Amino acid sequence: MWKMFGVALLLALAGAAGARAEGLGGDVRAWRLAHEGQIVGNLAAFTRIPSVAADPAGLNAMADRLGDELRRRGFQTRELSAGDSDPKVVYGAFDTPGAVRTVVFYAHYDGQPVTPSQWRSDPFEPVMRMGAGPDASDVDWRAAKPPLNPEWRLFGRAASDDKSSITAFLAAFDALAAVGRKPTVNIKVFWEGEEERGSPHLAQTLAANRDLLAADLWLIGDAPVHQSRKRMIYFGARGSLSLDMTVYGPARALHDGHYGNWAPNPAAMAAQLITDLRDPEGRVLIPGFLDDVRPLTPAERAAIANLPPVEDSLKRQFGIGASEGAEGLTASTMRPALNIRGLRSGEVGVEAANAIPTDATISIDFRLVPDQTPEGVRRELEAYLRDKGWTLVSETPDAATRAAHPRLIQLAWGDGYPAYRDDMSSPAGRAVVASASRAAGEPVAVLPMMGASVPIFLFDQAFHKPVIGLPIVNHDNNQHAANENARLQNLWDGVETYAAMMANLSW
Amino acid sequence: MWKMFGVALLLALAGAAGARAEGLGGDVRAWRLAHEGQIVGNLAAFTRIPSVAADPAGLNAMADRLGDELRRRGFQTRELSAGDSDPKVVYGAFDTPGAVRTVVFYAHYDGQPVTPSQWRSDPFEPVMRMGAGPDASDVDWRAAKPPLNPEWRLFGRAASDDKSSITAFLAAFDALAAVGRKPTVNIKVFWEGEEERGSPHLAQTLAANRDLLAADLWLIGDAPVHQSRKRMIYFGARGSLSLDMTVYGPARALHDGHYGNWAPNPAAMAAQLITDLRDPEGRVLIPGFLDDVRPLTPAERAAIANLPPVEDSLKRQFGIGASEGAEGLTASTMRPALNIRGLRSGEVGVEAANAIPTDATISIDFRLVPDQTPEGVRRELEAYLRDKGWTLVSETPDAATRAAHPRLIQLAWGDGYPAYRDDMSSPAGRAVVASASRAAGEPVAVLPMMGASVPIFLFDQAFHKPVIGLPIVNHDNNQHAANENARLQNLWDGVETYAAMMANLSW
Repeated sequence: MWKMFGVALLLALAGAAGARAEGLGGDVRAWRLAHEGQIVGNLAAFTRIPSVAADPAGLNAMADRLGDELRRRGFQTRELSAGDSDPKVVYGAFDTPGAVRTVVFYAHYDGQPVTPSQWRSDPFEPVMRMGAGPDASDVDWRAAKPPLNPEWRLFGRAASDDKSSITAFLAAFDALAAVGRKPTVNIKVFWEGEEERGSPHLAQTLAANRDLLAADLWLIGDAPVHQSRKRMIYFGARGSLSLDMTVYGPARALHDGHYGNWAPNPAAMAAQLITDLRDPEGRVLIPGFLDDVRPLTPAERAAIANLPPVEDSLKRQFGIGASEGAEGLTASTMRPALNIRGLRSGEVGVEAANAIPTDATISIDFRLVPDQTPEGVRRELEAYLRDKGWTLVSETPDAATRAAHPRLIQLAWGDGYPAYRDDMSSPAGRAVVASASRAAGEPVAVLPMMGASVPIFLFDQAFHKPVIGLPIVNHDNNQHAANENARLQNLWDGVETYAAMMANLSW
Repeated sequence: MWKMFGVALLLALAGAAGARAEGLGGDVRAWRLAHEGQIVGNLAAFTRIPSVAADPAGLNAMADRLGDELRRRGFQTRELSAGDSDPKVVYGAFDTPGAVRTVVFYAHYDGQPVTPSQWRSDPFEPVMRMGAGPDASDVDWRAAKPPLNPEWRLFGRAASDDKSSITAFLAAFDALAAVGRKPTVNIKVFWEGEEERGSPHLAQTLAANRDLLAADLWLIGDAPVHQSRKRMIYFGARGSLSLDMTVYGPARALHDGHYGNWAPNPAAMAAQLITDLRDPEGRVLIPGFLDDVRPLTPAERAAIANLPPVEDSLKRQFGIGASEGAEGLTASTMRPALNIRGLRSGEVGVEAANAIPTDATISIDFRLVPDQTPEGVRRELEAYLRDKGWTLVSETPDAATRAAHPRLIQLAWGDGYPAYRDDMSSPAGRAVVASASRAAGEPVAVLPMMGASVPIFLFDQAFHKPVIGLPIVNHDNNQHAANENARLQNLWDGVETYAAMMANLSW
């Protein structure tokens, strides 16, 4: 992709904008170096507020705090919601006289649920450590002589996902004010408090606030950067769709000596079904499943080929001897997937009984790509199963139903939403990559679409404006797990990137 | 088979032995009708003794009680063991002057472990109920007017497996004494207390007591009769071999959006492996696995074809729409099997995370037939896995080992033992079937080999004498599960069959 973007980018880097960026970058970096303690202090203070779904008061306290932070910086703020839903979206606007473009900065202030027993320390009492390993020592960062070691990590729920993005945004705004740089765009903030439970009111809130949220670009401050630790911009995310399938054997567990090979074995049926659904490289065998897949453009393929190599190091780190597919990590996440998340049938180990289990459950997580739809995938899978002789049911069948239908399968569909992949070559897209690259002093990594899912299609659906991912946190941050952490260098990079998006972005 | 056995049997039924049996059968039945309360009282008293592995005192109390029962009837008794192992085998001998044949009656007095919370009533406080259903009413059988309803069932651990056989044996002996019928054979009793935990000292005990246990025939009073409720004789049992196989994905669960289709999915690998091991009809695909299988004789095939039809009723009862194989219930249990007992990988349902699981475990239960050996099966499977590119390990591999070997599999082999199938046409075999049939007044069902496993090869290995199965309890007795029960008609049938084996058996 860089071959294609190259001309415009090199011109930009070499020209007036590049020179201005050099100045901006240096100024912001100098300010950050002088204010590291203050920035980390903000992140720690945010992390201390337990803004998780289980704690509505914590969510409200976080929303109040963020409103205060914005107002103190001169933003006009409002709390948005669909009806009287809680927690509220924290909205803020900062107008730049003369600016022709408006950018909305999205992030979420809620964190994943916590299981405190799995954490090394209280998820809401942030602790700085010298690294990510289980033996990494605690550091008294408040007493440390600056600059802080950029490999240190602050541990706490939501410290990276997304309170780092929010912290970097606020620090970038402060830096610009301190060095006397005016933003080049009108700034809007949309900080959501329900993302980790699936953004149930997001579509309604967007629809209800069309005029207020009018903008030329949405920047999504969620997700981690590339595994190479290079700064990254992403242009989309896969959709998702979950499904549990249960197939049935005898209505009660039967002695497998007396009845094995006569009574159907649901575990064996589940295994056969899995191999009917996907091949050993994970290619989905459901007829029609690939029909709606929008091909990658040459620019997108080039961007993928241009990503720094990380596979060897990840293989060592994750204990992987050979990848499932042969096309490489990023390419394999560009196609739609049928991931097996779990299998359950009978018992294993010391609890295993010599019995034919009554059923077997396969838990599946589809990853969709443009232009697949959850409805289409559901229709295609159900048609395929019927073709294969399965009778579909939506509840656990009784013995009479089982006796009447040799191949019964219960489908329990979860929520789903489509993918979104923006045009990397749009003026806004090129401007974002160029601005981030100028701030980084080198071309940033460009990912046409994240393998993971975030429902950014909703922003596109509501506004038909570019939606671009602006991640800053480390990929190894344990988000969604215990011991979530934010690496300081990523936070520093993020401050520079956010400053560039506010004061060095134009198209 | 009856066509082949026909001549000898019809002669026997029509001849002097038949007439004598008619008299014996009538006498025993009359005695039973007059003593039903006493017989059930014995079974209830035995069931009340908690002779399970978790209760060594209960096992010893049961052994003591059975020794007393035998001595009171004139048996010479001893307790046998391998070294100082507990619980002891209860051995008894009753010599019949002039008898030329000696028969050992085997049964076990220990019961399966119990999970009391799963039972309708205390497993060691036997309760009579009007049937087997979950709503069957309790009956005060002690106050009931005789004869007792033969469909009633006594619920309690080991009530059927094998305390019914022991009770029937003792009642048959009492009946013969009461009606003045002398046994036709020397009688030995071998009642074991460790069967339900795998008879760990059986081979040693047999070897250590060769002379004492010398006999012409072993009759195994274990297992249920045919599902048609017809009385049954069986000539063998499949062997067994258990195995848990674990295949590996990444060393820690990885986000399946970011890493799916690149990181190997162990659940999908396990599914592929299962389909590599068995076809949808349960035929085992391991090369060499079938090489040692001894074919069924024409007589054995005929015996299977002659079994009463039960499949339609079992399908309704178990909620089975179609059998796995097409060859029928009994035929399908004559071949070796690879049953999947359990599958575990990741999580399903509400606990499912969008993650690639770290591993997947398949729990397998092989059923072996003559002349397969556990060692041979193990060798064949391991060779097959290596051919398929698997690296075999015996412990959970670390990340470095995983990274070095793309396809790792951990094999955790359980205990195993071979099958045994006796010659149905031996003089002893023909005599047992003829005697049981005379007692029943009709040909009994003859099963060449049980699908389930009992280690009766040990008796053959130790003595090279015929080993024949003499089951009496109902097939739907919930043995090895909660609410084990013994149906009274099966107990009555058992008394008649045992009397015939003692006093109407010669060859």
